[in-house]
Amino acid sequence: MAASRFAPRGSIEQIEEGRVFAPKFDAEGLIPAIVTDAWTAEVLMFAYMNEEALANSIETGEVWLYSRSRNALWKKGETSGHTLRILEIRVDCDQDALLVRVEQQHKGACHTGRSSCFYRAIAIREPAGHTLVLTPRNAEKVFNPAEVYGGGEKRD
Amino acid sequence: MAASRFAPRGSIEQIEEGRVFAPKFDAEGLIPAIVTDAWTAEVLMFAYMNEEALANSIETGEVWLYSRSRNALWKKGETSGHTLRILEIRVDCDQDALLVRVEQQHKGACHTGRSSCFYRAIAIREPAGHTLVLTPRNAEKVFNPAEVYGGGEKRD
Repeated sequence: MAASRFAPRGSIEQIEEGRVFAPKFDAEGLIPAIVTDAWTAEVLMFAYMNEEALANSIETGEVWLYSRSRNALWKKGETSGHTLRILEIRVDCDQDALLVRVEQQHKGACHTGRSSCFYRAIAIREPAGHTLVLTPRNAEKVFNPAEVYGGGEKRD
Repeated sequence: MAASRFAPRGSIEQIEEGRVFAPKFDAEGLIPAIVTDAWTAEVLMFAYMNEEALANSIETGEVWLYSRSRNALWKKGETSGHTLRILEIRVDCDQDALLVRVEQQHKGACHTGRSSCFYRAIAIREPAGHTLVLTPRNAEKVFNPAEVYGGGEKRD
């Protein structure tokens, strides 16, 4: 593996209280990225970045991700046109997760046509088990995936 | 591995549009959990749940997690007392990530003493590299970790 393009990890004190960005990539070379709408604070999607996706995101100000299922770098919106403009990237205390605050260029961050990927909820204080039913939450579609993606793979 | 206590995975159509909760746990038996404040929508922390942590969270209405570093189930706040009451758990389109919307019982979800773990930002549209500097964002401490955790491990 090539040397990281980001700073090496320091002590716990340096990682938690320091000013140096030293992101931790996991054994697969990935770091989790929570994408939120910077204006509404809605959580839009959850994905992963590898070093290249993170570097591209920082340098271009648009969201780049890494698809584990396709083993490929991808720019969010490269098929749908629904790109996301980054206003800010935050890192958590131990610098192993990212919060990407974005401005939506087009409505709908989810490939199913919804504004957010988190459009269903489960009931709390019930016995956990095979019978848990999902309830819609802001689940109305804001675009038609068939029109946006055509017959192709719904990849973003 | 024992049979899952949650429903088995169905077709893509069933997973994305269906009413059955069929969460996907990764090769390590974990599912990512984004924890947000249900009132402010602030992203508080990012962690993982295993099946037992998810079942406990659903049944008790309090946040249970799984620590990868300690290989242990833990209840958020078991040391600090800063437990989190769950108002809602949402699941994403492919049911491999959770959004846990909570009410904070005490101020400060981060073990460093901050309200949120995401208290630093990096600059966008700069060359990615070893020199990226972090800027504080809502980084004032709302509790004193030394008082809350004493000399013990700052585990939650």
